[in-house]
This record gives sequence, C-alpha cells and structure tokens, in this order.
Amino acid sequence: MREDIAEMMRIVRERTPLVHHITNYVTVNDCANACICAGAAPVMTDEALDVPGIVRISSAVVLNIGTLNRRTVASMRIAADEARRADVPLVVDPVGAGATAYRTETARELIKGGVDVIKGNGGEIAVLAGMSGEVRGVDSVSDSGGDAAAALAVSAGCIAAATGPTDYVSDGRTSYAVGNGCGLMERVSGTGCMAASLVGAYTGACGVSAEAVTAALTVFAVAGEIAGEGSPGPGTFRMRLLDALEGLRPEDILERADVRRI
Amino acid sequence: MREDIAEMMRIVRERTPLVHHITNYVTVNDCANACICAGAAPVMTDEALDVPGIVRISSAVVLNIGTLNRRTVASMRIAADEARRADVPLVVDPVGAGATAYRTETARELIKGGVDVIKGNGGEIAVLAGMSGEVRGVDSVSDSGGDAAAALAVSAGCIAAATGPTDYVSDGRTSYAVGNGCGLMERVSGTGCMAASLVGAYTGACGVSAEAVTAALTVFAVAGEIAGEGSPGPGTFRMRLLDALEGLRPEDILERADVRRI
Amino acid sequence: MREDIAEMMRIVRERTPLVHHITNYVTVNDCANACICAGAAPVMTDEALDVPGIVRISSAVVLNIGTLNRRTVASMRIAADEARRADVPLVVDPVGAGATAYRTETARELIKGGVDVIKGNGGEIAVLAGMSGEVRGVDSVSDSGGDAAAALAVSAGCIAAATGPTDYVSDGRTSYAVGNGCGLMERVSGTGCMAASLVGAYTGACGVSAEAVTAALTVFAVAGEIAGEGSPGPGTFRMRLLDALEGLRPEDILERADVRRI
Repeated sequence: MREDIAEMMRIVRERTPLVHHITNYVTVNDCANACICAGAAPVMTDEALDVPGIVRISSAVVLNIGTLNRRTVASMRIAADEARRADVPLVVDPVGAGATAYRTETARELIKGGVDVIKGNGGEIAVLAGMSGEVRGVDSVSDSGGDAAAALAVSAGCIAAATGPTDYVSDGRTSYAVGNGCGLMERVSGTGCMAASLVGAYTGACGVSAEAVTAALTVFAVAGEIAGEGSPGPGTFRMRLLDALEGLRPEDILERADVRRI
Repeated sequence: MREDIAEMMRIVRERTPLVHHITNYVTVNDCANACICAGAAPVMTDEALDVPGIVRISSAVVLNIGTLNRRTVASMRIAADEARRADVPLVVDPVGAGATAYRTETARELIKGGVDVIKGNGGEIAVLAGMSGEVRGVDSVSDSGGDAAAALAVSAGCIAAATGPTDYVSDGRTSYAVGNGCGLMERVSGTGCMAASLVGAYTGACGVSAEAVTAALTVFAVAGEIAGEGSPGPGTFRMRLLDALEGLRPEDILERADVRRI
Repeated sequence: MREDIAEMMRIVRERTPLVHHITNYVTVNDCANACICAGAAPVMTDEALDVPGIVRISSAVVLNIGTLNRRTVASMRIAADEARRADVPLVVDPVGAGATAYRTETARELIKGGVDVIKGNGGEIAVLAGMSGEVRGVDSVSDSGGDAAAALAVSAGCIAAATGPTDYVSDGRTSYAVGNGCGLMERVSGTGCMAASLVGAYTGACGVSAEAVTAALTVFAVAGEIAGEGSPGPGTFRMRLLDALEGLRPEDILERADVRRI
C-alpha cells in the first residue's frame, strides 16, 4: 500500500487536478493552499450561474457545509447534479451533521442523490450512519470511526472516511486505518476541511477508490506528523503544514506511512 | 485581579465553551484559531435556519458586523433573540460603527434589544456612546476609550470594552484598564475581532462580568506581548500569537498582567 | 524609475490610503494584511446599503470577482458607479475571466463602464484583450502578458497589468516590465489578489498612472523576492511576505528593482 500511495502522490503532482469547492468561509484559504501544496489547483465558486461551467472543467468537486446557507446549498445541489452528469468525483464533507437538524438534513439530502466520498469526523460519520455519534458544534467527541465508516459506506453506497486520531476509510467491503498525524492537527481549525480537499485532489487525479481516499488522508497525516515535529504551537504548525505538504517526498511515505487494511 | 484572571483562564480551558460567531469573512479564520488556542471551541453559522439550534447549544454568541449584509444582519437579530431567550451571553463587536450610517444603525439596533457586552475600538465605542469618536473605514483614530466605555456601559446597560494601546472595560460602576500588548497588534488585521471571540469564550465559561471581559482582554494582550518579542514583522507575529495563546501559563498572567481598576 | 518607486512607497506610507475591496472570501485576509503592511488601510464591504458610503471615504476601490455572486456583482456595479462619480481610482481584478462565460461577461461589463486599472494574470488579460489566452479554473497558463496588457489598455482605455513570472503594465502608450519575484509566489493562493490590493493603495495615494501601478507591482515583487530567500516552503513564505512588505526599505527598491520601460 505504501508504494501505491507514493505512486498516487506522483500522479496528483503530474496531473494537477482542478478541484472545485463550495466550502465554508472559515477555512477556505487553508483548503486552497493545501490543494496547491499537494499538487492540485483549487477553484472556489458558489454562484449558481457559475457552478456548472466550473464543474465541467474540474477533476473533482468538494462540497463542505461548514457555513452553509440556503443560497449555497442550492448551488451545492447544482454542483452535485452536474458532477454526476459529467462523471466528476463528488466529495461531501458534512461539517456539523448531528449538531443541528438543518445540517443533518442537508448532508442527508446531498448524499441521497449519490456521492462518491463522504469524509467527516467520527461523530458526523456516525450520525449519518444512524449510529449514536455525538457532535458538539462542529467538533466530534466520538471515537467509533471505523465502525461508522464501514456502516455508512454500505448504507450510502459510497466510500466513507472518518477522520480522527486514527483515520478510517471504507468502501463497505475493504477498510483501511491510517495511524499517522499529530496532536496539533486537532488544535488548528480546518484540518478536516483540508483533508477533504486532498480527497478531491486524489480521487480527481487517480480515480475514485478506497485506496485513493486512503492515500489522500495518509499524505495529509504524514505531512502533519512532519510539520508537528518541533512546532512550538498551532500557529507555527499551521504554517509548517503547508511547507510539509509541498516538500513531501515519496520516501517520507515509504518510511512513515502507518496504513493497514482492517 | 491577576489571580482571578489566571483562575478564569483555567476555567475556560476546563470547560471548552462553544462560542457561536456571526462574523466577517475577513478575519473569521483567525477568530476560529484564537478560540481554539484560548481553550474554547468555535462555531460559525449565519443561516437563519441553522442559527437558533446552534445558539441553544452554545456557551456564548459573538456578533461582528465587519462584513455585514442584509441577510446576515437578519440572522444576527435571530441569534440575538435566541441568546436572550436562552440566557446565553451576547457579545457585539460593532466594526465600523461611525463609518457609515448603515453600520451605526445596525450596531445601535442590536444593542437596543439588550446585549451583555459591546467590544469595539475606541472610536466605535465613542460613536455608540454619543461622543465624537472619529472612525475612518473600520479603524479607530480616537483615544478616549476609557470615558467612552464608561459612558456606553451606562447608556446601553451592559459591559462596554474599548480596545486600543490601552484597553478599557466598564460595567458603568467599575472600570478596568489593561496596559499589556504590543505595537504589532495594530499591524495585523483582525486582532480586535479575535479579542471579541475571547470575550465570548470568557463570558461563556465564567459568566458575564466586567472581570471576565477584562480577563479575556488581558489574556489576549499578554499573549500579544509574548508573541511580539522577537517577531520580525506582522506575518511572524500573527503566527506566534496563536502559539502564545495556546502556550500561555498562569505564571505569565501573574508576572505580566498590567491590569488596574480605574 | 527606481527612485520614483521608492518615493511612491514613502507617499503610500505617509498617506495611509483607505482601500475599499469587494473581493473573494478565499484570499481576503491576505489582501487586508498586505494592505496594512504596505502602509494602506483596508476596508471590505459588499452590502449595497453600505458600499456608497464606504466608497466616498475611500482612496481607491478594488473589485475582485474571485468568488463573485449575483448579490456581490450588483454591489460591484454600485461601487464602480460611485467611484466614477466621486473620482476614486477603480481597480478591477477579473479573476477567472475566460474560465466561464459568467466571469468573462461580468468582467467585461465592469470594464465597459470605465475603470482605471485592470490587473489580472496573463491569461485573463489576454481573454479580455480578445486574444486567445488560456485560463484553467482561476489560474493562467498563458505567457503573452506584455502584448495582452498593451492591447487591453488600448481597447479598454485604461491601464492594464498582466502578472506572471514577469509583470507587464501598459497604459497603451508606455509599457513597463517588472522582473522581480520568486517562484514561491505561484505556490501560494492569493498573491495576485494581494498585488491588486497594492495597486489600489498606490493609485489611491499617488494618483492613477502606469508608473503608480508599476510601483505597486515592483514593491510586491521585491518583497516576494526577499521573503523567498531561505523560505523552506509556501507556508513560511506566506508569513514572511507580510514581514517583508512591512519591513521594505527604499534601499531595497533602489538595489533590487528590476523595472524597465519596454
């Protein structure tokens, strides 16, 4: 698997997939920069008149409901429909599903139409899987990511990824666990959003598979691990995370990736 | 007072208050990260369908009119009403009050309904107090924060805080001045917004009082002071500010806090 | 020319021009901080009720269509009209023109009403000049900036600037090329947007001329060059870019500026 991830890393950088985002305004800049440093090209637009044209030239679409509103949810529906029509990989990050009815219902509705990947924290994935995940605001306090991802993958008929201290990815048959990362990733807003952007980059360049999603999360977690070494705090870490993503070498994956099939 | 602040810092970190923001899109990421590093949990949502549910699970609500528009102002009214009903501390940051009639009127209307804390720069607080504060764009050029805070606290029946080289806090009877900080805080966009987020965190975790507001501003200013030491410029400073907030120890407050009752 | 640029740098810092932005939510924070570090004061507002009042107190208006929507495009029209009426320098950054019809048409419409400066990447400027620029998402893959800028300056009757490894500025008669910068500027989201903000600052403080636009781009590119020296990656570079803008001295311009009339 390590060799596969290193190879996918090379493919992303070679193809520079264009990743369209309709995402929240809190962490959008970090998503853009994480895309660039991972070798992809970000584009953000949420205007209904602009979305279909952008989706058609994109390699992947990432919908993140972190600061959803009625206008942007309508644009997400348009983006999702266009992505399905054009066979562009569609990734949903159901931020805060479980925290309010509006978020849960919006996430469910997007997923119901058919998506390629759902990536959330453990609590969000558990809620969408119909398990009793606990979500407080937009942060998860759950730790049952592995079971939740497998259950959601089956019920939604897609790949599900639950991030946390350990990240879990499942397509309903095969599941992976990624053990890399560092504690500072929980101390910066938007690491989950950036991970979703990378899932867009990797599925956009390498095709939709549990392996491509796992590769994206592994690359991000290994970069986080490298960035965390010697970082005195979250501010420095956030800066170094971009440096680490940009500078990541295949050898780093081969030496550090802690991925196992479960 | 130093011991009280150190103790409140401990309480915030222990309780991890959820701070709901309807805020501007310029500095929202810094507000989120400042919340996390101070020991709170941020959540941002401005959709009317989502706001009441989020307010009800929040420890405090921060309304910042930096990039207000009709839709988000309507959501701020909903958030304010829900916060009053649920007895959740309500903090208003009247960014740019005095610069345009729309900002001044929006700030006045929010305050008129009853708020717990108004935190602005000296010029904004002076304008809202009916004094002749001068506001240019969204930056204050006034230096009468102490009088303005006391006057506004009385007229609005709440706690008022005017930030600047010296920060002033007043509940109309008792007033405090905080002398900490460093010049680089004026060279980064959003330090005022981050201070308001911390006011949300401290009133959310410790209850509404002039002392809790003063504690928030002191913690932020001491972290700024530490971050400023050796920073070559605003970019580095901004990064270190988050590191300093996260790493702040009770001893730093006990040794450095320059707070006096005035 | 180097002496002129150093002198304009002094004037901007002395006058602290207020630069109003209606801009995208991806890079808006970097625009605000770049303005401050360059010696200007940023203000961002996109609400139609607020825009005219802000434009009237501003030294320049920057319209950036990076995350345009119908509401903000309507506000851009109001801002443009008010800027023309009040004789405030008007800068347009046509982000993604050429990528979708909606972006191209919106940019064309804004320009048609009369603007002072159009600043885009080479592909965007080529598209607007009616040349066959290639735009992929919001990034240029073209390298004919010099010709495109001269052509657009003539056809639109304004100053046109095409940024890239070499930046080109033309008023239709006189053209300049700026050779400074560093490769990391392409690895951070928003450097083009920040450059537009500085164009606002320089035309706002020094008047509209090809020389003022060239000065803004030179200052930004020299700061980028300084920031790039020793930066291990894009994250560190982004932080140092603000430090370098803030710390830039007239001597840095005199020693480093690579500007020539072409």
